[in-house]
Amino acid sequence: MTEEVQRARRLPRAVRERQILDAAVQVFSRYGYHTASMDEISEVAGVSKPMIYTYLGSKEDLFAKCIRREATRLLEAIQDGVKPELPPDMQLWHGLRSFYRFVADFRESWTVLHRQALTVGGEFAAEITAMRTRAIELVAALVVNAGARKGLAEQAEFSGEGLSAALVGAAESLADWALDHPDVSDGVLASWLMNLVWLGFNDLVEGDVWKPTA
Amino acid sequence: MTEEVQRARRLPRAVRERQILDAAVQVFSRYGYHTASMDEISEVAGVSKPMIYTYLGSKEDLFAKCIRREATRLLEAIQDGVKPELPPDMQLWHGLRSFYRFVADFRESWTVLHRQALTVGGEFAAEITAMRTRAIELVAALVVNAGARKGLAEQAEFSGEGLSAALVGAAESLADWALDHPDVSDGVLASWLMNLVWLGFNDLVEGDVWKPTA
Repeated sequence: MTEEVQRARRLPRAVRERQILDAAVQVFSRYGYHTASMDEISEVAGVSKPMIYTYLGSKEDLFAKCIRREATRLLEAIQDGVKPELPPDMQLWHGLRSFYRFVADFRESWTVLHRQALTVGGEFAAEITAMRTRAIELVAALVVNAGARKGLAEQAEFSGEGLSAALVGAAESLADWALDHPDVSDGVLASWLMNLVWLGFNDLVEGDVWKPTA
Repeated sequence: MTEEVQRARRLPRAVRERQILDAAVQVFSRYGYHTASMDEISEVAGVSKPMIYTYLGSKEDLFAKCIRREATRLLEAIQDGVKPELPPDMQLWHGLRSFYRFVADFRESWTVLHRQALTVGGEFAAEITAMRTRAIELVAALVVNAGARKGLAEQAEFSGEGLSAALVGAAESLADWALDHPDVSDGVLASWLMNLVWLGFNDLVEGDVWKPTA
């Protein structure tokens, strides 16, 4: 056992692992999976490469653990914000605010999840796709619920999944836009989206449909 | 000069290049940039590897040319669909229909542009980001124009760029969803989006704003 390993052992393993994952998210978000090097992660974390391999495995293992941790964080942040006793629009509003707060507070996490994970493909992309699908299902449940309250469940259910996929894409795209506009608060971002999609959805549920005129 | 190169020379260079690019889009869309091999592209195109290098350069050059061709195709398809003399909502409607028709007709092109190009990063991602920015600006111009017609240009302009980023994201996300639902026509997809975003935007312009109730 080297001296460094002995010194590192003085910190609890969980703390070390957190340091390594924090550094890895930072490096992966900056360079992407393929270009990121274990040397740089080791340097940013202040932990030797052999210790990283011992604790968290290969670069691939490390990336998988980053994605899982950040995805869990993001979903927990959104779920903590949503109050299931509220009406559907307020649930969506709180969920969106929590989402934009997360993106502002953890922009590197968002970059790794949204940009890097998809680019690596394979099981990573599959995991992110599964997370997006879950988000779309949650929104679809809100939409169907809101439609049912107004007595138009069938129409809402027919187009609900597609509309929810659109809404999730709108939220993601606005999050990317917000990264370049840090002065726009999570409340304003969430309001824009509510104004855009909820009012439109509301009209639709009430039978006010847009029709082409030419 | 090998016999194969001589045989290939009997076809005009432009035709050969198109064959190679078609094959490359197919292979890149299936495997992604990093995993795709020049061997497979050569096999699918029915053109020898040395000839691919001679005509179109390295794998990186080839990928760059694929992106440029498909991006141009996509933008031309959308522009051909839009009639600038129509009111803003009808322009958006025709643009969206053309977009969904393109995605249905050229799903491999869309995959390379939307998924693969971003994952490679660097100048490829920059090119795609520039294309998205152009799309967002075009939509923002429509939104501001529509707002101005109703006498609310300032409000529409303030949130216009963010709303347009959201709209472009919604359109992209619904395109991904549509790849798994080939039975939903481009007209239906475009209608969903118009109902979702245009009615909401319309309410907003008329001063009907969603407000949190709890």
